[in-house]
Amino acid sequence: MGQASPVADLVARAREGQPRAVARLISYVEDGAPVMREVTSALAPFAGRAHVVGLTGSPGVGKSTTTSALVAEYRARGLRVGVLAVDPSSPFSGGALLGDRVRMQDHATDPGVFIRSMASRGHLGGLAWATPQAVRVLDAAGFDIVLVETVGVGQSEVEVAGAADTTVVLLAPGMGDGVQAAKAGILEIGDVFVVNKADRDGADSTVRELRHMITLGSGPRSGSSDDPWAPPVLKTVAARKEGIGEVVAALDDHLVWLTRTDALVERRRARAESEIEAIAFGMLRSRIGDLRGDARLESLAARVVDGTTDPYAAADALVAGLAL
Amino acid sequence: MGQASPVADLVARAREGQPRAVARLISYVEDGAPVMREVTSALAPFAGRAHVVGLTGSPGVGKSTTTSALVAEYRARGLRVGVLAVDPSSPFSGGALLGDRVRMQDHATDPGVFIRSMASRGHLGGLAWATPQAVRVLDAAGFDIVLVETVGVGQSEVEVAGAADTTVVLLAPGMGDGVQAAKAGILEIGDVFVVNKADRDGADSTVRELRHMITLGSGPRSGSSDDPWAPPVLKTVAARKEGIGEVVAALDDHLVWLTRTDALVERRRARAESEIEAIAFGMLRSRIGDLRGDARLESLAARVVDGTTDPYAAADALVAGLAL
Repeated sequence: MGQASPVADLVARAREGQPRAVARLISYVEDGAPVMREVTSALAPFAGRAHVVGLTGSPGVGKSTTTSALVAEYRARGLRVGVLAVDPSSPFSGGALLGDRVRMQDHATDPGVFIRSMASRGHLGGLAWATPQAVRVLDAAGFDIVLVETVGVGQSEVEVAGAADTTVVLLAPGMGDGVQAAKAGILEIGDVFVVNKADRDGADSTVRELRHMITLGSGPRSGSSDDPWAPPVLKTVAARKEGIGEVVAALDDHLVWLTRTDALVERRRARAESEIEAIAFGMLRSRIGDLRGDARLESLAARVVDGTTDPYAAADALVAGLAL
Repeated sequence: MGQASPVADLVARAREGQPRAVARLISYVEDGAPVMREVTSALAPFAGRAHVVGLTGSPGVGKSTTTSALVAEYRARGLRVGVLAVDPSSPFSGGALLGDRVRMQDHATDPGVFIRSMASRGHLGGLAWATPQAVRVLDAAGFDIVLVETVGVGQSEVEVAGAADTTVVLLAPGMGDGVQAAKAGILEIGDVFVVNKADRDGADSTVRELRHMITLGSGPRSGSSDDPWAPPVLKTVAARKEGIGEVVAALDDHLVWLTRTDALVERRRARAESEIEAIAFGMLRSRIGDLRGDARLESLAARVVDGTTDPYAAADALVAGLAL
């Protein structure tokens, strides 16, 4: 590598498959480290090869078990898999998910698998910013599949689903039946639906109801009306690894469809737009933050307090004075 | 009012004490309505007269009961009281707090009292933006006291406390004892501490421990080292209205201290700074949002997808092109 910078060196080692280098880069992402600009630039040429699969569902549907089974299935096919377990409700990495992570120990010694819990540490932009960056790290590090597992908590699952090429929505019998699913907005985000714990009562009726809602609901998520994607509804018993091969086959089918219809590029472009916006937004926010203690902001605030100006007019003056 | 605009007319009616006009203005705040700029400008000359009191504490300490008792005490003294019940954890107005609000029915028919639940509807800036704006509505509408009641949920309670002249921290025996309080950061934000449900076991030891922590902890929140404020720790049984007169007396004392030491102007200026920043931030965000569908963002995103640029460089280009 000659006179490589520390970042270039770290990226090179991540691309050689060194898990500690990958972990270090993801820590930079989580911390919103200043070096992220350089990291992102160094990763950019190597990204875009992985199939990014989002997996979401309510607590208790078996997300971790399913993730673990999917990882095993992909590994059996010789593919390298990176897993990001994202918990938008936790301010700490690994905390809430630690129990679940224990189950992932199956893969702990497999160098073809990298598993990381991520949570918002409250830095600028939060997980909406950090998730695509962490995905890029794993993508550029050469993982064939990047699985992003999210706890379903409303808006954030939709945001995180935006980071994936293919989104799997996981349900369990009797938990999230049709109407509930429709309410939660998951019908719109799912490319593949999986009813896990399918050995339980009510699995078939959940599948039927979902299929019905999907037929009623919608065309394809991306706009190719002459070659639409019909989201399949599959049954699994992830704890016994039943039905997992069919899920992987459906994910592969979806990737083929995405590529054939140009929906892949379209989705990734939309994702890049969101990412650029989030970064630009963070830049502007920190420039405003830099004005803390600035005499101009102080005097504007004093004028708001004495009623000679109002906060909007003051904000206009502040924005007009930002050196962009 | 002659040829008054609808907003000017609404502000005039709010200042005459018409509750529907006040409610309408606060709905504008919650919705982040475009007309907020005009509303804020129209309110600015009339704001700054009310004593803004924040009341925060964990669920179960008796916030609503205490608020209700404080309202009754202020009313007995002939003062008009506006109440904002802020729930940062709820995406819906009134939802989570509905049960509590029922207890406030005591004041439902009193024209000297205005009560409103507020929650983040997810608009730009959220409650950190909306709370000071809603306070300004009540302030300009001529309420002598504006009580801002917040559920204690970490960061947001600190933010909302920032909207108050005086912050009351409510605890209950055995719930939030000293160390817990220190951990939660509430020692720093409290100007007046109230141990409610003081007829329960352990009230005296909670009071003692709090006093000890306060003595150890800190000087005054605002910088007047020759005339410091020593936060009192009071006991109440709000359900029986015991000790409420003493709380109001402490709040009055604190206002006198704030005024004497210029801490009032200092706090309000800091508050105005945050408010200006939040508005400026919202403006910038919406300008970035306006670029959705813009050809330039699209082509930057396409270049990120094909790896010829990275998201940071693209964000630089985007920000440089913002017409400020």
